[in-house]
Amino acid sequence: MRRSGAELDPDDGRELLTERTPRVAAARKLLRRASRFDAGRFLVEGVRPVHEALTWAGESPGRVHDLFLTDAVADRDPTLEERARALGVRVARVTEKAAAGLSDTVTPQGVAAVCSTVTVALETALAGSPRLVAVLVGVADPGNAGTVIRTGDAAGADAVVLAGDSRNQPVDPHNGKCVRSTMGSLFHVPLAVSRDVDAVVTALRDRGLTLLAAAGDGETVLDAAADALLAAPTAWLFGSEAHGLDERTAALADHRVRVPIHGRAESLNLATAAAVCLYASARAHH
Amino acid sequence: MRRSGAELDPDDGRELLTERTPRVAAARKLLRRASRFDAGRFLVEGVRPVHEALTWAGESPGRVHDLFLTDAVADRDPTLEERARALGVRVARVTEKAAAGLSDTVTPQGVAAVCSTVTVALETALAGSPRLVAVLVGVADPGNAGTVIRTGDAAGADAVVLAGDSRNQPVDPHNGKCVRSTMGSLFHVPLAVSRDVDAVVTALRDRGLTLLAAAGDGETVLDAAADALLAAPTAWLFGSEAHGLDERTAALADHRVRVPIHGRAESLNLATAAAVCLYASARAHH
Repeated sequence: MRRSGAELDPDDGRELLTERTPRVAAARKLLRRASRFDAGRFLVEGVRPVHEALTWAGESPGRVHDLFLTDAVADRDPTLEERARALGVRVARVTEKAAAGLSDTVTPQGVAAVCSTVTVALETALAGSPRLVAVLVGVADPGNAGTVIRTGDAAGADAVVLAGDSRNQPVDPHNGKCVRSTMGSLFHVPLAVSRDVDAVVTALRDRGLTLLAAAGDGETVLDAAADALLAAPTAWLFGSEAHGLDERTAALADHRVRVPIHGRAESLNLATAAAVCLYASARAHH
Repeated sequence: MRRSGAELDPDDGRELLTERTPRVAAARKLLRRASRFDAGRFLVEGVRPVHEALTWAGESPGRVHDLFLTDAVADRDPTLEERARALGVRVARVTEKAAAGLSDTVTPQGVAAVCSTVTVALETALAGSPRLVAVLVGVADPGNAGTVIRTGDAAGADAVVLAGDSRNQPVDPHNGKCVRSTMGSLFHVPLAVSRDVDAVVTALRDRGLTLLAAAGDGETVLDAAADALLAAPTAWLFGSEAHGLDERTAALADHRVRVPIHGRAESLNLATAAAVCLYASARAHH
């Protein structure tokens, strides 16, 4: 007798879970921020991101809980199921419709994993002696946040912090678009989320980090002359794409730094400005 | 008697053009690439981008043809109509629905201008003695292309070239999403489009530019040691986000350069990699 919500695979008669199967329905709820918060779990979609999640689970088992995939994906990449089973992940084949229900994109990938959330406490993210930290203040766009997490990873950042007050709630890095934009870096860099910007600034200062606020009208220009400044352990504060860093937060930094504009552009976008700043630090550190 | 497709403004009885007015219908067609190509015109949407277009038309009149705006936008920013009229632009108030029809976004801005296309011949874009040129090869994503145009402007690039073969058609920089991503830089930097990558490479070499291919597996690392190389007049070749620069094109460059990855990210995205490369050149030049 078939389980609730299961369908028989037309090819081999095996069971395929449908969108009505309780496990699939529960996973689907993780597309909502509140459900992710309550469950402490989130969804990772796509062959390559799921492989990244499995590698992450390999370092500390028990962090990937379910793997849902269609026959088509399992046939294309048999290592997905093998790796997941070896790690004790519950594996289930699902219908195309069930897989689509686990996706927030218009082109579902046919594979999704339920993972424990990756964020850690601020103290944990800043443990050791961090030399480069990226802080996003009031950044609400998940694509921008994900790109900065990816860039921070590439530039060798020791942590990324998503900060913002209650009016300006920080983005949830477990949001599907943010996860995709990180291209796996979500699993590489210690990530913390905090609504208390002052507490973040205090914690960074306590660890001896120089605080640099990226600001289009900053007094310090990010050029060769800034190398001595950048050689110190540094936390960069970046504001939102639309509004930049608020005055109050910028004033908490040791220096307000601007990327020089040599042409007639008024500004850079958040992700490219962050890339220039973080790589200027990486260059000074290496 | 009212003109075809006009409605009376409920407030002051003036005529508002509707989506059926021939001028509005003709402008709407410019949302399609083929129509832009045929007409040599494109649409710019939004208060700030339209102001940028008017500034551009101020430098060389006759390049903005029509301004369509709703009463709400005209009330909010009276300078739009004033500036346009002073430049001899045909101005018309339109209904909200007509304005929405001139937009390819889900949140229409209520104002759009019909402009002459901005692209110039490759020889024109490379006139003078360019010291920094960004070349996008086979980049199809308009958001990426627009962001690199904006970054190129900020970094002081003398030109941006969109290249690609017939299979891998270069993005049209007049695409709505690309225009928005440039944040006005479309009007600042000489832009050329060419399907013939070899001709682009030859033209760059003829002008004495060192050709650097951005490649994740490049032999040359973009670090302090590369400064001597970057001091020369340089053309950067960037490939698509998905596939990078094709082998054949990369082999045409003088050096294959990689942005160092200090963490565990596999790569940077196109726009952030281009920002790091172009700003490394800007730093070496200034």
